[in-house]
Amino acid sequence: MTSLARLLRTVPVPAPGAGAQARRRLDALTKPPGSLGRLEELAIRLAALRSGPPRVQCPVILTLAADHGVVAEGVSAYPQSVTGQMVENFLRGGAAVNVLARQAGARVVVADLGMVTPSSAPGLVVRRIAAGTANMARGPAMSREQAVRAVEAGAALAEEAVAAGADLLGTGEMGIGNTTAASAITAALTGAAPEAVTGPGTGVSEETRRRKVAVVRRALETNRPDASDGLDVLAKVGGFEIGGLVGVVLAGAAHRVPVALDGFIAGAAALLAAALAPAARHAMFASHRSAEPGHAIALGRLGLEPYLDLGMRLGEGTGAALFVHLARAAAAIHDEMATFKSAGVDGPA
Amino acid sequence: MTSLARLLRTVPVPAPGAGAQARRRLDALTKPPGSLGRLEELAIRLAALRSGPPRVQCPVILTLAADHGVVAEGVSAYPQSVTGQMVENFLRGGAAVNVLARQAGARVVVADLGMVTPSSAPGLVVRRIAAGTANMARGPAMSREQAVRAVEAGAALAEEAVAAGADLLGTGEMGIGNTTAASAITAALTGAAPEAVTGPGTGVSEETRRRKVAVVRRALETNRPDASDGLDVLAKVGGFEIGGLVGVVLAGAAHRVPVALDGFIAGAAALLAAALAPAARHAMFASHRSAEPGHAIALGRLGLEPYLDLGMRLGEGTGAALFVHLARAAAAIHDEMATFKSAGVDGPA
Repeated sequence: MTSLARLLRTVPVPAPGAGAQARRRLDALTKPPGSLGRLEELAIRLAALRSGPPRVQCPVILTLAADHGVVAEGVSAYPQSVTGQMVENFLRGGAAVNVLARQAGARVVVADLGMVTPSSAPGLVVRRIAAGTANMARGPAMSREQAVRAVEAGAALAEEAVAAGADLLGTGEMGIGNTTAASAITAALTGAAPEAVTGPGTGVSEETRRRKVAVVRRALETNRPDASDGLDVLAKVGGFEIGGLVGVVLAGAAHRVPVALDGFIAGAAALLAAALAPAARHAMFASHRSAEPGHAIALGRLGLEPYLDLGMRLGEGTGAALFVHLARAAAAIHDEMATFKSAGVDGPA
Repeated sequence: MTSLARLLRTVPVPAPGAGAQARRRLDALTKPPGSLGRLEELAIRLAALRSGPPRVQCPVILTLAADHGVVAEGVSAYPQSVTGQMVENFLRGGAAVNVLARQAGARVVVADLGMVTPSSAPGLVVRRIAAGTANMARGPAMSREQAVRAVEAGAALAEEAVAAGADLLGTGEMGIGNTTAASAITAALTGAAPEAVTGPGTGVSEETRRRKVAVVRRALETNRPDASDGLDVLAKVGGFEIGGLVGVVLAGAAHRVPVALDGFIAGAAALLAAALAPAARHAMFASHRSAEPGHAIALGRLGLEPYLDLGMRLGEGTGAALFVHLARAAAAIHDEMATFKSAGVDGPA
């Protein structure tokens, strides 16, 4: 059995009523039942996943980078060189994800899953599948074997983080062109029209966005990904960093560690993970709703309601970093508040 | 001139273009312009208010407590004793606002603006106007002179916090019955129907909510508050802690210190503050959208878009405490990120 096949078999389904103990505790605390809204729902989901009190002491954001052959079609506002330059920026701590992760007390792991140009920047974790994907508008982005290796590489990174103590994983990515891949994946797996799931990405003009829609349509027509086969979709219209994030989600789920999904790219990876192992959904937490139109469609299909809605569309793991505060808040409410009984507060009249 | 009249004259209007320097800086950072969405808008508003870089190093939440004579009409799920019991819970650090403020690195100041029963709990700041308001369903909740004193007391608390270094003020409150007062204020100042602005509060039954709607209607018919006169509205259908929060908002605005509005009660206080000094709006930040239906109506009137929407309806300052993370994140993005130039990252092709 391959490593991926083993992983897929270990994704657990939480026991029915796994969150009931957390709900009872929340209802005993000095506040009207349910009055902290989604913070309570979040605490219950975190508790249900690990069958114990929610715990967010060691959050780790995995920011995976790779390049995309489809940029040859002119789908991005930025040149491909930016992928590698931003990776160096991550490693020096100057990017948005670094700032937000520092503020949230989260560690950032930066890995090269397949940039066009290898980097020897200190701190970079090198797990290269190839020097960028092929142009999906003309053929499959990668082979099925490469797709499996990308997922396994991401899963291994997540497992290393969990072994080192991570109790919350955040997904991050960098890859010029990757909103085009995420659009194609989302269209393939949800049946939505390319027009509906293709947005401005880093901020292309409406003219370029139309070209991007046409490229997504062409990629789907050329490759005919099989929506019932997540690996086929990943291989034909995905990316190495997206495959890596599929592995992060699956490994998090397998180890009962919550995975804070970032934005649109993470949403596409989550759709792929759910296609491979539907139970992985229990470990997914939609940190925020991206301004990219395809993200809401992906989250809707996954049945996930985002916690933040701030019009962000940067990626890198920035939304996941902000979510860490909410997850910590939910855990603290569960753990630290007084009960009506302990505080001597009267209940409803 | 009274202290309040002086305060109202000192609320500044930010200079036109006061946020332009912050916007230029944000656009130079290593991310597509605007891609951090409302985090960037927040950084710009914080910068515009103080005509300098956003700064959130010393957030203070002012949680003001008072009782409401209108509870005699049976509008709350909890007995009036809970106001004082929860104040003791705040002072022992066991309530939701304590937990969330701790996690956000914010100090909580707890003040008695007029509870029915005085408390000698250690740490309580005593600024009592009276032992609870009168029943607004039968006459004015307080005199105009008491309304002025409540606003001045809240302003003085805020000024003490600012003098001690506070650079972000959060509004919090505790007062069994105060959603009924907030509903009446919101109806009086926005013209919305009592039915539209009256929700379940701490969680009353639909039958009790209907009674609450009738009480709000009766309070408005009995007192006929003058919507063009914020102090008249506060005196007739307000509360001492609500008056105190009006003072917090006005003093924050006067000192160019951002005020994180919490939920529905804070929204009513903000409506009153804007009625007294329209420029105070520049200092208001709507931390979250409460599940109480009147809150969205109040925020809409104020032209404020909340940053969080988590279905919370607890008050105390809990939403303001969560907002501290976002304000800190916005400031950190502004201050700590690398620019395209400093990081050697290529701009758009």
